[in-house]
Amino acid sequence: MSIADQPGTADRQALLDRIDALEKRVTEMESERAEDKVSMVVFSGDLDRVLAAFVIATGAAAMGQKVDMYFTFWGLTAIKKRTEMEGKSLLQRMMAMMTPGSSETLPVSRMNWFGAGAKMLRMMMKERNVESLEDLMQLARDLDVNIIACDMSQGVMGISDAELMDDLEHGGVGTFLGSALTSKATLFI
Amino acid sequence: MSIADQPGTADRQALLDRIDALEKRVTEMESERAEDKVSMVVFSGDLDRVLAAFVIATGAAAMGQKVDMYFTFWGLTAIKKRTEMEGKSLLQRMMAMMTPGSSETLPVSRMNWFGAGAKMLRMMMKERNVESLEDLMQLARDLDVNIIACDMSQGVMGISDAELMDDLEHGGVGTFLGSALTSKATLFI
Amino acid sequence: MSIADQPGTADRQALLDRIDALEKRVTEMESERAEDKVSMVVFSGDLDRVLAAFVIATGAAAMGQKVDMYFTFWGLTAIKKRTEMEGKSLLQRMMAMMTPGSSETLPVSRMNWFGAGAKMLRMMMKERNVESLEDLMQLARDLDVNIIACDMSQGVMGISDAELMDDLEHGGVGTFLGSALTSKATLFI
Repeated sequence: MSIADQPGTADRQALLDRIDALEKRVTEMESERAEDKVSMVVFSGDLDRVLAAFVIATGAAAMGQKVDMYFTFWGLTAIKKRTEMEGKSLLQRMMAMMTPGSSETLPVSRMNWFGAGAKMLRMMMKERNVESLEDLMQLARDLDVNIIACDMSQGVMGISDAELMDDLEHGGVGTFLGSALTSKATLFI
Repeated sequence: MSIADQPGTADRQALLDRIDALEKRVTEMESERAEDKVSMVVFSGDLDRVLAAFVIATGAAAMGQKVDMYFTFWGLTAIKKRTEMEGKSLLQRMMAMMTPGSSETLPVSRMNWFGAGAKMLRMMMKERNVESLEDLMQLARDLDVNIIACDMSQGVMGISDAELMDDLEHGGVGTFLGSALTSKATLFI
Repeated sequence: MSIADQPGTADRQALLDRIDALEKRVTEMESERAEDKVSMVVFSGDLDRVLAAFVIATGAAAMGQKVDMYFTFWGLTAIKKRTEMEGKSLLQRMMAMMTPGSSETLPVSRMNWFGAGAKMLRMMMKERNVESLEDLMQLARDLDVNIIACDMSQGVMGISDAELMDDLEHGGVGTFLGSALTSKATLFI
């Protein structure tokens, strides 16, 4: 005999139990639903790859997505504004001398030839009226893209907060993972 | 007093309201459900990385996934079939001369030694009867993998549609994001 | 006239049908729900990138995520423990001689200078009491991170199981995809 044929309270109670159970399951699924968010690790400090990261980031932000960019390792050089030697160990000073002091001197990943390749790419972009990396970075800030600096990398490379762009967030791998696990798309660049 | 004990219309109406609400929530979640789809940015133009991209793409397609491959920057060289100098600016011509003219001359990311490394890798693959990059690319086409060329990169590098493989799609960062945000997995290669 | 006003069996049957349909839809969505899992392809054999992979892997495992690391191509050199020349073809022997014999001799992706860059990075990490790559790899094992070796790459490069770390899993692209398609985040490193 189907439950639909049962009259009275038992019938109603069975229905209510099934609806209760459904509500619980739906609430649980909703709690894990990915947010409208894109997260990325920017590991690379190459002009071409950092450009790709910011094109995707600003594109996603323009489409209404929250965007978290987590800069680590060579990627930190893309968000530096200057280099200070004080407070650095000898190794850290050597590293600082050998790596770019800001986004403007990032090399390209191929055919860099001591910066000629990077200059050439920038000229080709200008020729086509494509926004420069610095314009895209400003656009990202304007669109509320979150720029997060990896504190472990800062520590290892001896990069102080004062050397980085203003108004950044700071975080560790847990910060990145917290974002990635609730994002619709995650990229390692 | 539990709702299950209430007799009559009020009871039924309360049940109906909860079912209506559930249907709405379930419909909303269904509308955001990731599709059976893998999307990737192929940024690299290195033989080894492009091979990895096509191994994953053809594997996913064979498993019944929709696959969108978005070729940008150096990745465009992997889907070129020839180089034409007409219509290019001086810088674009220089770039064309310094980059591979098709998938067959892609370098490897390490130990390329002016192409010797790439030849060695191809020989090692043949020795083991592993499909060549060109075979994998054909297989990808046969399996309806979507090959999408980034139009911004084409513009900057001055690569015309006639220089690329036939029957490609074209798109911008919005095309990639539209795919990535509804995919089960997204890769940046 | 609303269904809520209809008395009797027809009313109950309509309700039951809607609840049946909801249960089916919810069950289907639950079956596709991403697991608490992070999956990654470790394609790179660069010390800096492999470090990033293990920092993310151990971080995710510590947060209770299942972690699948799929080592392919240059990445295989990071999970080698020794090199054996027997059983290798001439090309495979050349490749073995030119690539690192274990994690301890991985180069850095930039400014490697025949290993000086890698040594410098290791010294900088030690200076800050950051765990070494080998410590992180051990931690990953302790946290039950799955280390999977790509069997196609092993075949092409002629790397035998005896040359790799003990207690690894082995798999093909289907193994990786099976993991990635049910993961909350996927990375290609």
